[in-house]
Amino acid sequence: MTDMGLVVVGAAGRMGQALIRAIAATPGARLAAAIERKGASEIGRDAGELAGLGPIGVTIADDPLPAFAKADGVLDFTAPAATVEFAGYAAQARIVHVIGTTGLGPEHEAGIAAAARHATIVKSGNMSLGVNLLAVLVEQAAKALGPEDFDIEILEMHHRHKVDAPSGTALLLGEAAAKGRAIGLADNSVRVRDGHTGPRPEGSIGFATLRGGSVAGDHSVLFAGPGERITLSHVAEDRAIFARGAVKAALWARGRKAGLYSMRDVLGLDAA
Amino acid sequence: MTDMGLVVVGAAGRMGQALIRAIAATPGARLAAAIERKGASEIGRDAGELAGLGPIGVTIADDPLPAFAKADGVLDFTAPAATVEFAGYAAQARIVHVIGTTGLGPEHEAGIAAAARHATIVKSGNMSLGVNLLAVLVEQAAKALGPEDFDIEILEMHHRHKVDAPSGTALLLGEAAAKGRAIGLADNSVRVRDGHTGPRPEGSIGFATLRGGSVAGDHSVLFAGPGERITLSHVAEDRAIFARGAVKAALWARGRKAGLYSMRDVLGLDAA
Amino acid sequence: MTDMGLVVVGAAGRMGQALIRAIAATPGARLAAAIERKGASEIGRDAGELAGLGPIGVTIADDPLPAFAKADGVLDFTAPAATVEFAGYAAQARIVHVIGTTGLGPEHEAGIAAAARHATIVKSGNMSLGVNLLAVLVEQAAKALGPEDFDIEILEMHHRHKVDAPSGTALLLGEAAAKGRAIGLADNSVRVRDGHTGPRPEGSIGFATLRGGSVAGDHSVLFAGPGERITLSHVAEDRAIFARGAVKAALWARGRKAGLYSMRDVLGLDAA
Amino acid sequence: MTDMGLVVVGAAGRMGQALIRAIAATPGARLAAAIERKGASEIGRDAGELAGLGPIGVTIADDPLPAFAKADGVLDFTAPAATVEFAGYAAQARIVHVIGTTGLGPEHEAGIAAAARHATIVKSGNMSLGVNLLAVLVEQAAKALGPEDFDIEILEMHHRHKVDAPSGTALLLGEAAAKGRAIGLADNSVRVRDGHTGPRPEGSIGFATLRGGSVAGDHSVLFAGPGERITLSHVAEDRAIFARGAVKAALWARGRKAGLYSMRDVLGLDAA
Repeated sequence: MTDMGLVVVGAAGRMGQALIRAIAATPGARLAAAIERKGASEIGRDAGELAGLGPIGVTIADDPLPAFAKADGVLDFTAPAATVEFAGYAAQARIVHVIGTTGLGPEHEAGIAAAARHATIVKSGNMSLGVNLLAVLVEQAAKALGPEDFDIEILEMHHRHKVDAPSGTALLLGEAAAKGRAIGLADNSVRVRDGHTGPRPEGSIGFATLRGGSVAGDHSVLFAGPGERITLSHVAEDRAIFARGAVKAALWARGRKAGLYSMRDVLGLDAA
Repeated sequence: MTDMGLVVVGAAGRMGQALIRAIAATPGARLAAAIERKGASEIGRDAGELAGLGPIGVTIADDPLPAFAKADGVLDFTAPAATVEFAGYAAQARIVHVIGTTGLGPEHEAGIAAAARHATIVKSGNMSLGVNLLAVLVEQAAKALGPEDFDIEILEMHHRHKVDAPSGTALLLGEAAAKGRAIGLADNSVRVRDGHTGPRPEGSIGFATLRGGSVAGDHSVLFAGPGERITLSHVAEDRAIFARGAVKAALWARGRKAGLYSMRDVLGLDAA
Repeated sequence: MTDMGLVVVGAAGRMGQALIRAIAATPGARLAAAIERKGASEIGRDAGELAGLGPIGVTIADDPLPAFAKADGVLDFTAPAATVEFAGYAAQARIVHVIGTTGLGPEHEAGIAAAARHATIVKSGNMSLGVNLLAVLVEQAAKALGPEDFDIEILEMHHRHKVDAPSGTALLLGEAAAKGRAIGLADNSVRVRDGHTGPRPEGSIGFATLRGGSVAGDHSVLFAGPGERITLSHVAEDRAIFARGAVKAALWARGRKAGLYSMRDVLGLDAA
Repeated sequence: MTDMGLVVVGAAGRMGQALIRAIAATPGARLAAAIERKGASEIGRDAGELAGLGPIGVTIADDPLPAFAKADGVLDFTAPAATVEFAGYAAQARIVHVIGTTGLGPEHEAGIAAAARHATIVKSGNMSLGVNLLAVLVEQAAKALGPEDFDIEILEMHHRHKVDAPSGTALLLGEAAAKGRAIGLADNSVRVRDGHTGPRPEGSIGFATLRGGSVAGDHSVLFAGPGERITLSHVAEDRAIFARGAVKAALWARGRKAGLYSMRDVLGLDAA
């Protein structure tokens, strides 16, 4: 089989550059094209040079259509509206679309689901092996440790530039905990504590957020009970792990039938 | 010198019982009286029995005045209004008043300051050696690690019954950090993060709160900079350390002139 | 059903006292007898008073046989040789024997297995719900995270009085990790690192031990891979959780047929 | 003032490449030469290209003498014997020598001290701001928290390739703790715990080592006392912080008189 040709969208951003480096480091994958927004200052530059790899002969362009037409897959950590548009193009081209974009609303989810009739889409709030395994373990622990005795808390820390809270990964872990408890997350979340809060509501799932420095992403899920505590945590040392996960997802998806997949599918993980 | 006779107010509560046990375990201190609110169901019971020590011959009573008159000091982890009243009685009796009460407003602080003209008052948001030393270290670190490079975050966890956030100790540590930076805490605190927050404001001090189980009190102060992080943290295994600290403060204050002291004075700690 | 009558052996020790308090706090259980070694200074004292409960009318005695004869079960956190002896008596009396003793060698295990033909024995290196659940999660994680990419390390901390290392619980968690990897623990453990160690042997399971203060028991299992880390950890706030677990195990075992059970059986936990 | 011309020795190694990148990123510094061992396969390659910067016109060479003659300083994270040799050359050239080499024995220290009569040498087991500040705080905490109540433990974790234990930084922190206690580290260290250890020796300083994955360097110093614990810890996210610290040290040392300096001097840190 020839190497899988991958398009990176948002190629000039931090995550785009990490994707370009991850493709270069993965046997079986090659960079087919690098796309940025029209008018971006990096258009016309060599994508490898920008990513710190030295020149690789792929120039950053602004038109996704010809790029998708000749590629086998797309790696996309951009923004919700752009991602829905790219999903449509991927459906037309009948190729793989790996989506790491966060902040998707119900309308974006609907657009992606529609595209998944013809595109092979892998979508996840976190592309690392570690976090996806952690979610499986959290689900099991939440099931075994009932709400009358154990309180669930989710803590995350990211760098000073992150603009939203809690992180997509914290929410993913919250969903896993809620699933283990067979409750809805939205109805049982406590996302703010300040001043007179009263005692902790039984069965709630609390979130706390730290921001600072250059932290790539730390997450902990705590189960605090009478006289004992279990903590399940994940540390991402740098964002390269998300890029490697995305490339791995693309290679896994190649040749699979159209549909919407998760990283749990890619990694073969499932709760007991 | 005879043993120091100490009155415990709020004697039937969790902290009151811990104080009674700490007095029993400390050479040089004895329980002179145990006071509860009028109408409390424990009035008339033996204070030692209630605290799990077996009978000690001190009955829980509801009138503080005769108790203060014959004592050398008072240990007080009650509520703001009661504490101001007790401070007045301590001033009349010219004895020691150790205050661990939290949630004091400016009006309470004023009442305590007035009483300190005649009472020897030791007041602190946290009576443990560890936390007070930590505050000294936090102040120094905050001074050495400037706001352009290092972000300060304060994390605390307490049991599910705690009704306010952040904890008094978290605020005490925040004050230490602010003092090290020579800024005001109130103007530079970020106490809530939820939804679109934007990037972290430079120089701010963030707070995050976890609640669950039976955690006696965990606190961490993080200094997150470019590529590295320092964390200074304290774990209280049980509330006995606060009770021991209060008894230690009373013994230290005995015979000192009237005035308002802190645990840093008791412990002889000071920032460089 | 009448309350289950339980004998505590080693009744005057720290763990014995915690067991007596746990029995007093558990509906459906009562203290039938309290046994200590012949010649112990506490013989003849009231067991409740010694445990800080006030007098309960059970005197500490030194002859296990009459005590076992009239009881439904025995709680035993003593020493290996004594435990084998007690298992024999429990077999004769055809009652429940809950064993939390650590440091058992193969010869002790054999004696216990023999007794389990007639006694209903629950034996575990750790009686807490949290640690037993953790072991299940560790086994799964060790299976999912292969040795070429992920290194397994086990860290524990206990109080300054503990005389052996690593703790029984650390070894229990190591066994879970080894089982997940389908390897033997003994052949793959690294228990000492000092001086020139060379690079970490692939597939090994490392242990590290901290000792200090009054720590009841902290355990962490780390899975460290390329660019990311998962940590699964447990904190015991005090030894009451082990006592509560032992009483729970006894109640679970009552009426079950003779045999050798684990806390995983009691708790209904199992790896996927 | 012209940019400071710096020679990187060990230029083809991981740390050498990080130094080259740090020089490129620091205003006021430029790469004057890049040196490797005779016979190294990278001789003749462009140093910038090797470090992932793209070509910068400095070729990796194997003769230090002409390089030192035309430079203002040397950055050196090589091995003990090489470092002593480079210190001699730096003394001849009367330039700055920044030494991050670990594993130095007394004979190496003597050679470096001799060279410091003519070279301006900055030597440290860890070049980061964070670790050096941590050492100051550790010294103070060790002084305030006496050995009868508080036990000191030092924990470190590094990647799977590290070949010695404990790390140079763990020892640096141990020295700071010992200094705070006014004891010698060598006589009071416990570096191995396995099997029957007996209770913890009062006043000892314990070390524990974890190895795995790609961890750049985590260090914690624990002070564990009766009912409470203080932990002072540092996380290095990547080795760039050590490289940046070395460049900073070189710029600080430029123009200073010959002598042996530490990172505490560079950073202006000192214990109270």
